[in-house]
Amino acid sequence: VRAPRRLSPTAYVDGILSGDRIVLSRAISVVESDLPFDVDLTGHILEGILPHTGKSVRVGISGVPGAGKSTFIDALGVHLIQDRAEKVAVLSIDPSSQVSGGSILGDKTRMARLVSLEQAYIRPSPSRCHLGGVARRTRETMLVCEAAGFHNIIVETVGVGQSETAVKSMTDFFLLLLVAGAGDELQGIKRGIMEMVDAIAITKADGDNVHRANRARDDYRNALRLFPKGLDGWSPRVQTCSSLEGSGVKEVWETILEHQKLLTETGHFQARRRQQSLDWMNDLIQFGLEDLFKRHPEVQSRLASLTSEVRVGHLSAFSAARQLLKVFGGD
Amino acid sequence: VRAPRRLSPTAYVDGILSGDRIVLSRAISVVESDLPFDVDLTGHILEGILPHTGKSVRVGISGVPGAGKSTFIDALGVHLIQDRAEKVAVLSIDPSSQVSGGSILGDKTRMARLVSLEQAYIRPSPSRCHLGGVARRTRETMLVCEAAGFHNIIVETVGVGQSETAVKSMTDFFLLLLVAGAGDELQGIKRGIMEMVDAIAITKADGDNVHRANRARDDYRNALRLFPKGLDGWSPRVQTCSSLEGSGVKEVWETILEHQKLLTETGHFQARRRQQSLDWMNDLIQFGLEDLFKRHPEVQSRLASLTSEVRVGHLSAFSAARQLLKVFGGD
Repeated sequence: VRAPRRLSPTAYVDGILSGDRIVLSRAISVVESDLPFDVDLTGHILEGILPHTGKSVRVGISGVPGAGKSTFIDALGVHLIQDRAEKVAVLSIDPSSQVSGGSILGDKTRMARLVSLEQAYIRPSPSRCHLGGVARRTRETMLVCEAAGFHNIIVETVGVGQSETAVKSMTDFFLLLLVAGAGDELQGIKRGIMEMVDAIAITKADGDNVHRANRARDDYRNALRLFPKGLDGWSPRVQTCSSLEGSGVKEVWETILEHQKLLTETGHFQARRRQQSLDWMNDLIQFGLEDLFKRHPEVQSRLASLTSEVRVGHLSAFSAARQLLKVFGGD
Repeated sequence: VRAPRRLSPTAYVDGILSGDRIVLSRAISVVESDLPFDVDLTGHILEGILPHTGKSVRVGISGVPGAGKSTFIDALGVHLIQDRAEKVAVLSIDPSSQVSGGSILGDKTRMARLVSLEQAYIRPSPSRCHLGGVARRTRETMLVCEAAGFHNIIVETVGVGQSETAVKSMTDFFLLLLVAGAGDELQGIKRGIMEMVDAIAITKADGDNVHRANRARDDYRNALRLFPKGLDGWSPRVQTCSSLEGSGVKEVWETILEHQKLLTETGHFQARRRQQSLDWMNDLIQFGLEDLFKRHPEVQSRLASLTSEVRVGHLSAFSAARQLLKVFGGD
């Protein structure tokens, strides 16, 4: 496969920094590509824009289909653009179109107001099957958007898959959207997500639903009180909101800014960003090592049969791993 | 470093299978060793015992220092041995002697009754600093104990570190011990552990403390109800117990057996054991690859400076990882 016609690294960097939308989109396509030429080019682009990154507010937003993610992000984005005069990029990750029915992507009408505003940029991240999954290039895409002058980056995921941990590791704040139901708000939400949250927003708190939403809010407040504080001193918040009425959305953003202010003052914010970079480097090394391993001809020829033997209990995991590592290391 | 005098693989296997305590302990020392000779020997021992493994009940027990782990395990072990005529092995993992003050290990008196019973075997797992940490050889040690005829394996950890995920991945049931306090039972417990639990036991439910323990039990029951069920259909239980009075301990074990019965009937038990073996194989491959990477001379000479550049923001994690992988892969 040959790469489509590409610009020079400088052309990408200049275009991104000047806020050129066409170049921005083309640069993200390079970042998302697995072609060796593009991977090298990505490295050059990232070096060029690096001094201009790191200044945005990075927020992960998760919730099952039906939790009102699209309308919430639409309302939030419009608030940021119209009331705060800031630009917003929304990166959507759909880890498993089987599970969600692909509902968060592709639907141009789902963020109807936001999509029409010039200060907004909405981009789905392509789904990938290999290790590191879905979010493998979302971090780099985020950096590119930052360099292009977006003040706020929202990384949107469906709260049912493996991508939430990755999103948590690349954002400053993790917001979970829940819709108040009959005590089963978390149906479909992956176990483990609750303890990642910096805030929960109970959506659709309007009309007949207000009372139920308030009760859900109180329940979750009580539940979260039983959990230990994070090391950064932040206690997760629970709020209600209505994207329909526009109420509560501004308040959720104020919570996010309060969190950022607190963590910046204590130095946790900067420390966390630094640690996220190092974690990302380690993750990339790990993915890269697994790629090298799986592409090794002798490993390839033996992996399947050894895996089968371990599965049926004829070989220990220990011995299988050791045999494969010897083959790979050339001992 | 030369290995101490070792037996033949067959001698280890025969000794383990015949329940010889001296050989068992010596075999575990081989399993825990990092000497290349011992690692090969471990492979041979594991192949020999593999058909005799898998039949025990594997339980992970976690809790911060002060939660009453030692007295609980002491009471539980005595119950299993005296009332059920079963053998018990306790493997203790202390991930961070800095945090816990090394309190869970070495103290011979902390399981006073159990340590005196011939049907019990108590073994601390040595702390390791490198990747995969602490529990790197606990799984193999568990298999050796199973082959030696122990019906129940208890893997004990302090609930403050990274080892709980590893313990969860090698056991059938994860029990968290909490002591009722003024609403801060989880002080010191790592976030994320709550969503791993199959059951919580509120300890020290005796004397003046009964009322408080019952209230804590109700609080956690309500909180856990807000969490999604596991895929295996099990809803976490919350129970109280008193190791002092001996009450509730038997009931906790009955919950564990009920869990095993349910999951065995639905096939989840066997599926989970198979998946755990495959996960373990993948983990071992990953640790092995990172070892190979970190011992590569050129990687060693560049890793520190590239890491520094990423930390201070002069180089992207992406480029640093790519440079190191090229060096390692010999491109």
